[in-house]
Amino acid sequence: MRATYREQLHLIVMDLVRMLELVRIALHDATTALLTADLQLAEQVISNDKAIDDLAEETERRSFSTLARQAPVAGELRMVFSAIRLLTELTRMGDLAAHVAKIARLRFPECAVPEPLHANFRQMATLAESMVADAATVLGTTDVEGAGRLARDDEEVDELRREQFRALVDGSWDHSIEAAVDVALLGRYYERIADHAVEVGQRLIYIATGEEPTGTE
Amino acid sequence: MRATYREQLHLIVMDLVRMLELVRIALHDATTALLTADLQLAEQVISNDKAIDDLAEETERRSFSTLARQAPVAGELRMVFSAIRLLTELTRMGDLAAHVAKIARLRFPECAVPEPLHANFRQMATLAESMVADAATVLGTTDVEGAGRLARDDEEVDELRREQFRALVDGSWDHSIEAAVDVALLGRYYERIADHAVEVGQRLIYIATGEEPTGTE
Repeated sequence: MRATYREQLHLIVMDLVRMLELVRIALHDATTALLTADLQLAEQVISNDKAIDDLAEETERRSFSTLARQAPVAGELRMVFSAIRLLTELTRMGDLAAHVAKIARLRFPECAVPEPLHANFRQMATLAESMVADAATVLGTTDVEGAGRLARDDEEVDELRREQFRALVDGSWDHSIEAAVDVALLGRYYERIADHAVEVGQRLIYIATGEEPTGTE
Repeated sequence: MRATYREQLHLIVMDLVRMLELVRIALHDATTALLTADLQLAEQVISNDKAIDDLAEETERRSFSTLARQAPVAGELRMVFSAIRLLTELTRMGDLAAHVAKIARLRFPECAVPEPLHANFRQMATLAESMVADAATVLGTTDVEGAGRLARDDEEVDELRREQFRALVDGSWDHSIEAAVDVALLGRYYERIADHAVEVGQRLIYIATGEEPTGTE
């Protein structure tokens, strides 16, 4: 009976890993759609976001019925708790990838990002994508060290965002206000996706090593 | 024994309501700091954000030990599940209020929002603040109808944000690129706070009326 229960918990983690893989694909495609002004691909990312939302709902139901069936011991409970909090993060990551695709769609047939910033965005997107992939590995293999690496990668993402701000305000900006606003929001979306990937790592550390919550009352 | 348990669950809901009240105050002060370029108040909002984070951690620990102590029945389990997911939302709302304050601090002694947009931002902030207050009431009194009102108020927030975009791109913008970027990001922060308030209402509907999750395996 306990073995079956552990299998249920494992399935929940695997669902989270699968959600991260869907997010990674969405992010990859959204970036391509953005930088090549590919309307069809943008539409695809936007409509695929539902699959991530659906998987989150399914996983919540699964977590719910797992907990309802058998009282978990502390380590298991910590895992289910973290899974539930991660669902909110992962759903949000999918939304953010869709937001990138929506800006790509809005500016089509133009490209929302001015050419001089393409290299910056490509680098930021590649980094964010690899962070999402790392977060999936970290979660799937309980890799506590990998969780630490995510925080370091996040600093690089933040530095790329600062570079975007400098390009916007150093007086040399010769694109529209609209393009400036797009760049500011797009940078924010990628930065937030990277933040969420870091959060996945932090949660994993809590699952793997966390002291027992002691309660406060 | 069961009565004590129900009291524990009630305390969790009261913690969430208290978090929302802290968010409301943070949002109110952040808006004042923003529109009057009040550095001291901005600093205060930023440092007070830790109180919201701490309360979220305390509430998570409390939920954890409540669940660990006694296997909840379905309705209770649904409540604790929702509380955990709401913790992520409420922590995030606090962060967003602090983000507003950080922009106010960054531009001091200037005001980040150009004068012609003050009325728009004031209206948006007032609406967002009342949505946060409503979310607290809805949650504290299990007011399912109030949850529906939140979604309607959110549409007004979205319309105010569209108004901001029009001001930015209609060709009449005679402020800096930096100010345009600030307005775009600030609008985003307020809009997100309002979205989270709607989410609180949706969760409340789930707590109060949700069908039993049936599980999928």
